[in-house]
Amino acid sequence: MEPMKLHPQPVMPQGFQCASRNCGLKEKGTDLSVFFSSVPAAAAAVFTKNHFPGAPVILGREVILGRRLQAVVVNSKISNVGTGAAGVENARRMARATAEEFHIAPDTVLVSSTGVIAKPLPIEKIERGIQGISALIQDDPIVGAQGIMTTDTYAKAVSMNVGPAVLTLVGKGAGMIEPNMATMLVYVFTDAAVDADALDAALRDAVAVSFNMLSVDTDTSTSDTCAILANGLAGPVDQKAFSQALSFACIEMTQLLARDGEGATKLLTGRVSGARDAGQARQVAKSLINSPLIKTMAYGADPNIGRILMAVGKCFDCDIHPERIIVHINDRLIYARQERVDFDEAQVRTLLGGDRVDIAVDLGAGQGEAMAYGCDLTEGYIKENAAYYSS
Amino acid sequence: MEPMKLHPQPVMPQGFQCASRNCGLKEKGTDLSVFFSSVPAAAAAVFTKNHFPGAPVILGREVILGRRLQAVVVNSKISNVGTGAAGVENARRMARATAEEFHIAPDTVLVSSTGVIAKPLPIEKIERGIQGISALIQDDPIVGAQGIMTTDTYAKAVSMNVGPAVLTLVGKGAGMIEPNMATMLVYVFTDAAVDADALDAALRDAVAVSFNMLSVDTDTSTSDTCAILANGLAGPVDQKAFSQALSFACIEMTQLLARDGEGATKLLTGRVSGARDAGQARQVAKSLINSPLIKTMAYGADPNIGRILMAVGKCFDCDIHPERIIVHINDRLIYARQERVDFDEAQVRTLLGGDRVDIAVDLGAGQGEAMAYGCDLTEGYIKENAAYYSS
Repeated sequence: MEPMKLHPQPVMPQGFQCASRNCGLKEKGTDLSVFFSSVPAAAAAVFTKNHFPGAPVILGREVILGRRLQAVVVNSKISNVGTGAAGVENARRMARATAEEFHIAPDTVLVSSTGVIAKPLPIEKIERGIQGISALIQDDPIVGAQGIMTTDTYAKAVSMNVGPAVLTLVGKGAGMIEPNMATMLVYVFTDAAVDADALDAALRDAVAVSFNMLSVDTDTSTSDTCAILANGLAGPVDQKAFSQALSFACIEMTQLLARDGEGATKLLTGRVSGARDAGQARQVAKSLINSPLIKTMAYGADPNIGRILMAVGKCFDCDIHPERIIVHINDRLIYARQERVDFDEAQVRTLLGGDRVDIAVDLGAGQGEAMAYGCDLTEGYIKENAAYYSS
Repeated sequence: MEPMKLHPQPVMPQGFQCASRNCGLKEKGTDLSVFFSSVPAAAAAVFTKNHFPGAPVILGREVILGRRLQAVVVNSKISNVGTGAAGVENARRMARATAEEFHIAPDTVLVSSTGVIAKPLPIEKIERGIQGISALIQDDPIVGAQGIMTTDTYAKAVSMNVGPAVLTLVGKGAGMIEPNMATMLVYVFTDAAVDADALDAALRDAVAVSFNMLSVDTDTSTSDTCAILANGLAGPVDQKAFSQALSFACIEMTQLLARDGEGATKLLTGRVSGARDAGQARQVAKSLINSPLIKTMAYGADPNIGRILMAVGKCFDCDIHPERIIVHINDRLIYARQERVDFDEAQVRTLLGGDRVDIAVDLGAGQGEAMAYGCDLTEGYIKENAAYYSS
């Protein structure tokens, strides 16, 4: 098998196109995107586990039961969460307007909204924005990615090949991100022919090792959505290769989202091996990337072994044996079995000064492995979120 | 029963005295404290649940089995954590030096160390500091509190009466604080006559509603210690009144620690009622005060109902019924049963501009109640912890 790699530039798979425009929600930039397949596509999706799902998530869970989608419509700025029955009706209106514009069935339209919570959705503006948007449809996924941004600093899309087919992810992230499923919205488009059951299985496998191992700030949005559409125009692909490619691409998107976390200056990863099982490995890996003291240490480029031990040790329910722990930072051995290793601190600080901090912990207790993705914690996060007014 | 209240100034109970000095660990300020009872005291203690307990915690768990203490010795700046067998031997040397200085038994000395993790303790400096410290012993608990500070901005002690007796707490907090037991160190001194079993029960009850409901940053220190010493010089007290007073005083100390969390500008509380049970109430209350988006909103003084709903809704395992939730911020009704209440946002912002933000959530699902204590998240936390070098 050839090594997996992304295209240098993202492209839309055959039959998929997108558009975005400003419909009056944001003062500037696009705030409304549509993604469209020329033919109906097999589909699967996962949504937030938050007890306050947004209206689009409530509708999305209903729509995905049909296992078939032809369009995705997304607005940014207002999330349509905590808006009761009127919110769900507004989500339905978004779907209906999109269906009319593209001459497709309303139950093949997935709706998402992201932005401020508990404000009414300005549905008339959005409906007017959807009218005529089919004339703007084009082939660059970045255009669609622009319209779904909130506090993201750049638009995010990646593409790769799977046999004869193309797999393209368009996403947004930034804050309120610890998916269970992250407001993370990610849409996957492919021209591979894959049925809905296989899509669902491949998506759940991919999300488990990617978006569900991502945390910007431990907060779980009410709107998280990850959906996949496969329109089959490129024909069948090897199932296993498809599933592997999807996981690879989702991890790449996860890293893009982590790097662009609110205020983030670097990617922070936690790799755990030797855990008793995969569940414990995930718990320790998440504890590493979620610790404010490790996040600030990454920002400060300080190899502080004490904070790493602390974050491992606060996984109260895990099998942790202090005498067996081995820690590497950016592939440099830092601590082994209760002895601080004599490393060159200045050199490690230089390594940590880059745009990626990798913390690897071997627990020496079993075969469980996991990798989690996060970012550093900086004054930028504080500024962004102390100044983000809800009205 | 008369309402519980603190003394305007903390005092040491009969028979207790303390001293602090600089023994060369910190460049300036005191870094070594001793607390001493003229007679042996019944004692109980709780320690961190972190899997990497510091050497003093390892020794403390052994010493407390004797249920009797006469002195507490504490150094700041270096925590003696992750230091292996040599670390435990250094903790024993601190106990022995204190025992010699005060002519008491080494197994009646509780040792604590707080500061940087995984650096060897400069035991000779500490031993020299302990020699002659008995000549400095005096009655003001604040003097003892000064020597145990790390990034605390002020020394912390509170006193109150229980019948004929006095109850005094000396503590430190600041960062790496979500006790399970918070490096929170708190020592409780009383001249009440209470046996070790009753002390242990009263301490566990008090810690459950105070320090274990405190979080500055979700990080759990490897050195957390809360100990109580009762020397009996004031005679017996009503057991229930004692237990209530201890809980009250521990909650007061918890608020002091929260307010002085690293970079904090205000106290943030989460009060949950109507939970299915007390455990779920505690989980939701902690989720409120630990959410970075709520902590930054408290800093920014923005009444952002969406973030509150999000933090309630991410308690995946709790019984949450969105249609029943009622939210107050600083006693102002903000949200009730899926409808945003029409409140005066400017007025609420003014309320939130004070030094305390109280978020109260009624879940409408049962009788469970809990209250959690935290602080806002500011640029100060980032500065402090990105610049806090481990060496």
